Amino acid sequence: MATVTLLSDAELSPEALAIFGEIRAARNSDYVNDFWRALAHDPSLLRATWDRLRTVMSPDGALDPLTKELLYVAVSIVNGCEYCIHSHTAAARAKGMTPEQHGELLAVVAMASQTNALATALGVKPDVMFQADDKP
Amino acid sequence: MATVTLLSDAELSPEALAIFGEIRAARNSDYVNDFWRALAHDPSLLRATWDRLRTVMSPDGALDPLTKELLYVAVSIVNGCEYCIHSHTAAARAKGMTPEQHGELLAVVAMASQTNALATALGVKPDVMFQADDKP
Amino acid sequence: MATVTLLSDAELSPEALAIFGEIRAARNSDYVNDFWRALAHDPSLLRATWDRLRTVMSPDGALDPLTKELLYVAVSIVNGCEYCIHSHTAAARAKGMTPEQHGELLAVVAMASQTNALATALGVKPDVMFQADDKP
Amino acid sequence: MATVTLLSDAELSPEALAIFGEIRAARNSDYVNDFWRALAHDPSLLRATWDRLRTVMSPDGALDPLTKELLYVAVSIVNGCEYCIHSHTAAARAKGMTPEQHGELLAVVAMASQTNALATALGVKPDVMFQADDKP
Amino acid sequence: MATVTLLSDAELSPEALAIFGEIRAARNSDYVNDFWRALAHDPSLLRATWDRLRTVMSPDGALDPLTKELLYVAVSIVNGCEYCIHSHTAAARAKGMTPEQHGELLAVVAMASQTNALATALGVKPDVMFQADDKP
Amino acid sequence: MATVTLLSDAELSPEALAIFGEIRAARNSDYVNDFWRALAHDPSLLRATWDRLRTVMSPDGALDPLTKELLYVAVSIVNGCEYCIHSHTAAARAKGMTPEQHGELLAVVAMASQTNALATALGVKPDVMFQADDKP
Repeated sequence: MATVTLLSDAELSPEALAIFGEIRAARNSDYVNDFWRALAHDPSLLRATWDRLRTVMSPDGALDPLTKELLYVAVSIVNGCEYCIHSHTAAARAKGMTPEQHGELLAVVAMASQTNALATALGVKPDVMFQADDKP
Repeated sequence: MATVTLLSDAELSPEALAIFGEIRAARNSDYVNDFWRALAHDPSLLRATWDRLRTVMSPDGALDPLTKELLYVAVSIVNGCEYCIHSHTAAARAKGMTPEQHGELLAVVAMASQTNALATALGVKPDVMFQADDKP
Repeated sequence: MATVTLLSDAELSPEALAIFGEIRAARNSDYVNDFWRALAHDPSLLRATWDRLRTVMSPDGALDPLTKELLYVAVSIVNGCEYCIHSHTAAARAKGMTPEQHGELLAVVAMASQTNALATALGVKPDVMFQADDKP
Repeated sequence: MATVTLLSDAELSPEALAIFGEIRAARNSDYVNDFWRALAHDPSLLRATWDRLRTVMSPDGALDPLTKELLYVAVSIVNGCEYCIHSHTAAARAKGMTPEQHGELLAVVAMASQTNALATALGVKPDVMFQADDKP
Repeated sequence: MATVTLLSDAELSPEALAIFGEIRAARNSDYVNDFWRALAHDPSLLRATWDRLRTVMSPDGALDPLTKELLYVAVSIVNGCEYCIHSHTAAARAKGMTPEQHGELLAVVAMASQTNALATALGVKPDVMFQADDKP
Repeated sequence: MATVTLLSDAELSPEALAIFGEIRAARNSDYVNDFWRALAHDPSLLRATWDRLRTVMSPDGALDPLTKELLYVAVSIVNGCEYCIHSHTAAARAKGMTPEQHGELLAVVAMASQTNALATALGVKPDVMFQADDKP
């Protein structure tokens, strides 16, 4: 199910088709996943999302590609985004995530969810030493 | 402000005081942050939380300590846990996170938050190729 | 799937059946969607929810009906409520939402999700000029 | 800080003042907490919220008042509502919550947050035996 | 669908099989639900989760088992964990939750979600009388 | 408090200073709010965020500027982003939001949060008529 139809290549606008070409080239695969087929109804949003994704997840950065993909999965879990959890878990595996690393990722996410709930429940304000500025 | 008082060392139960000793030894510092002082009202919860944290964040694992700390920060951001964001951002810095890595962490979290919202809004189900099992 | 059965008209209590009559009259359609069929197990909760919904989404208000429906979709996206996203996206279309407006709605939700994550991560407190009162 | 001013009794509309009278009578105290002083800018929203709260939290129900208050705290923790966590933790104490029950409440919330994250990450669909209806 | 395969008994490691034995004994049933079959890929995470769950949900505590199960459902609803909502609603029924109690649980969760949103939107800080400590 | 320092104009990199110039010109005010001063530690993230914000919130669109600002507030409330709620509520007022519209915005957000929780708790799948595609 979806709130919009998933566009086939034949239904794409020229702008969307061009972006699909970029996605195919970047991933070296003809397969374009359904997220992009749903987003293609709005070519300008598709463009902005794809351009920014390519920049943020670029291999040239201060964090290595697998670490960024693990972070993507972690965020998706907490946001409860079923699609994103599945697609980025698959992407992490494609970038070399081992079963042990997957297990450890889950353990950290579960641990953080637990202490997040506790800290929120306790309502404690951050210790002064954790604050980078002097604004109260 | 907090929903419980922050216990001083003098107010701790013997069990809680022993755990504070472990925290001090593990971190090689006399300072025990306020999260633990709030949690210390319930020594068994304090024990379970500290023991599990030490195991999960242990340096002996499939993911390196900094990666795990970055994941902790990411989860805390999405959960909106102010205390955890501050304490684990500080911990990540202590483990070597550079300003460039911090910026890239924020960029990935922001990017994922954005596509999570889009994928959720579009309501698309995960592509079959992203599914590890054959349960419908 | 669901956590309760979806009640057919024949299974409804008299109170629930009366409320279904009001829903049918208000929407000028015999179709009653599954949310109400699940909620009908508790007629008093059904009554309270339907009455409040009718009041809040009434066309006599300071915001026009389409704007309120767009807000409903936005909230549902962030809460990750699959059912609500689908039903209120359909309702927004019925109230005249164009594909361009849908695209722009998604763009705003994605943008806000992104800066929400950044502001939360940075932990900055609201500027004094954004505060309506003088309570610290 | 707040996004609206907190109205003093002298600034209230007659409708809002009448509702404050009901709050004072129901709680047998002259103190009206700041949530209501902020909400009082919109008397109809104040009325709807107060009326529904009184009904839902009424002592005449299938769940006892303390259990309902604990549920209110749990929901507020997960929603990260600082105000609600503080006010309903205080209310739970006023209704008899012991320190041991508070600790156990926190332990359950932390446990559930942890397994919620794991189940979401694993993406497993509910077992057939957990589904009350036969809709796929 | 899932992000990992659901392991059959024949595919389990010896450690995981032993834990499945404990689950079967504790629940007096041969059926092991799919959450555990997914988690079994990482026996140490399975061990930590099952051990902590058994302790937290133990009948020997300050809160009775049904209350703890209702709290589990409430947390799962707010976290939007479909699997957990289904499994713990079933567990609550098995522990005696009546349809009236289920309706009331939903009413409290809905009420709290509503006032949580309002309090967060208004940005009011907790009244001084709701704060347990004197840290500003 | 914050996790990074708030940079003064004198501490900005040339790229960040140029973007501050654009913000000042666009808003016709010398005041640059603290979100940007925190984000300025990473000029490329500052650039990407400001550019995209300007595009998405542009007055030339299918939705009018006030509607987009109300949507921004709604998303920020559900995400619990204190900073964003304050800054965008102020921005909505600057764009003409009346107290009546603010009250109605809050009422819709509260209503949606309530039915979101109920629909999630009931676990009902979207009716077929709400699905735009034919993917099961």
